[in-house]
Amino acid sequence: MGFRLISNCRSEPIVGEDRQDIEALIDLMARLPGLGPRSARRAVLHLIKKRGRLMSPLATQMQLVADTARECITCGNIGTGDLCGICASEKRAIGEICVVEDVSDLWAMERAGGFKGRYHVLGGTLSALDAVGPEDLRIPALIQRVMDEQVHEVILALNATVDGQTTAHYISDELAGRCAVTSLAQGVPIGGELDYLDDGTISAALKARKSV
Amino acid sequence: MGFRLISNCRSEPIVGEDRQDIEALIDLMARLPGLGPRSARRAVLHLIKKRGRLMSPLATQMQLVADTARECITCGNIGTGDLCGICASEKRAIGEICVVEDVSDLWAMERAGGFKGRYHVLGGTLSALDAVGPEDLRIPALIQRVMDEQVHEVILALNATVDGQTTAHYISDELAGRCAVTSLAQGVPIGGELDYLDDGTISAALKARKSV
Ligand SMILES: [Zn+2]
Ligand SMILES: [Zn+2]
Repeated sequence: MGFRLISNCRSEPIVGEDRQDIEALIDLMARLPGLGPRSARRAVLHLIKKRGRLMSPLATQMQLVADTARECITCGNIGTGDLCGICASEKRAIGEICVVEDVSDLWAMERAGGFKGRYHVLGGTLSALDAVGPEDLRIPALIQRVMDEQVHEVILALNATVDGQTTAHYISDELAGRCAVTSLAQGVPIGGELDYLDDGTISAALKARKSV
Repeated sequence: MGFRLISNCRSEPIVGEDRQDIEALIDLMARLPGLGPRSARRAVLHLIKKRGRLMSPLATQMQLVADTARECITCGNIGTGDLCGICASEKRAIGEICVVEDVSDLWAMERAGGFKGRYHVLGGTLSALDAVGPEDLRIPALIQRVMDEQVHEVILALNATVDGQTTAHYISDELAGRCAVTSLAQGVPIGGELDYLDDGTISAALKARKSV
């Protein structure tokens, strides 16, 4: 057997130096939300087993998105140009802005359908605990947009959490007298987060929106 | 505002064509074990937010591993050459082979430490239900190794499942008279899978191994 004749005098870790690239990959994967060290190991092993049909295409696609994805300068949505697909589309109504905390909430709204206006992604919520003030979010930019774009309605689609509702009240106060401010109403459970709701619930809440 | 002047006559999906690369990435990510469509979306959004410091390095490392990782021709472990780091190491004892179902189990054994011999990765277990026979696994190659390498002990570190134990009995029968066959004993809970055990449990089971 040839393997016994191979000279290997490196002072190596238990598993061997050929594992270091794999370990580095596992460490990076473990930084994804929802994956710990153990599930990252399983994911990497799965990828290696399917390295031709899954791992290589995934790496290529990930690099492509890393190179092209960027935040829309108007609304904060993710797109590939200065303006996202929604802001760049002539088909989306002007004068109606749906305010969300995060891009994942925008995606949830789009999956639900029913909203034909444009968006504004705050990038979080006001938080006394975490010292997040209006200037740390896209709130000044929202107020500017309301003035510049002759906005007649701002729909607050913020999470039904304490911070989400604090943020809704703050924005509502700031926009008082400038445009109508409504919020998603029926169907959003207390403490619920938009991204975890079914599409029908979001649609119903949108239709039943009320003045704040 | 410039965005209202931009002409965009594409007949586009709701979210815009600039989402198609991101959707393709989400679809690929959703094929990882432990990630569904929703967690894949969250993971991709997290990556896009950290596209410089996490997404790009992850894509690069994933491509590197996809290009270099391969199965060891001797034991089935993952490495970067014909032989894995363990088979290529002079420091690992010859004549003692630990048989595992999967590479993840080999990694678990190595994390636990205490075993200084070499491995043999079966690539699964015998299964009447799934029609997996000895020829579908690395069992013939194991028997060949036992003869070629003057192996004096084969340690069966198979999962304590029905299929794992069926496989252990089969291998034990095949190797009867050729070498000692032992198995991990104390500490492996019924129905337990190696990769989910703590390192101490695996170490104890290794030390208390018994003849089959
Ligand atoms: Zn936009
Ligand atoms: Zn090997």
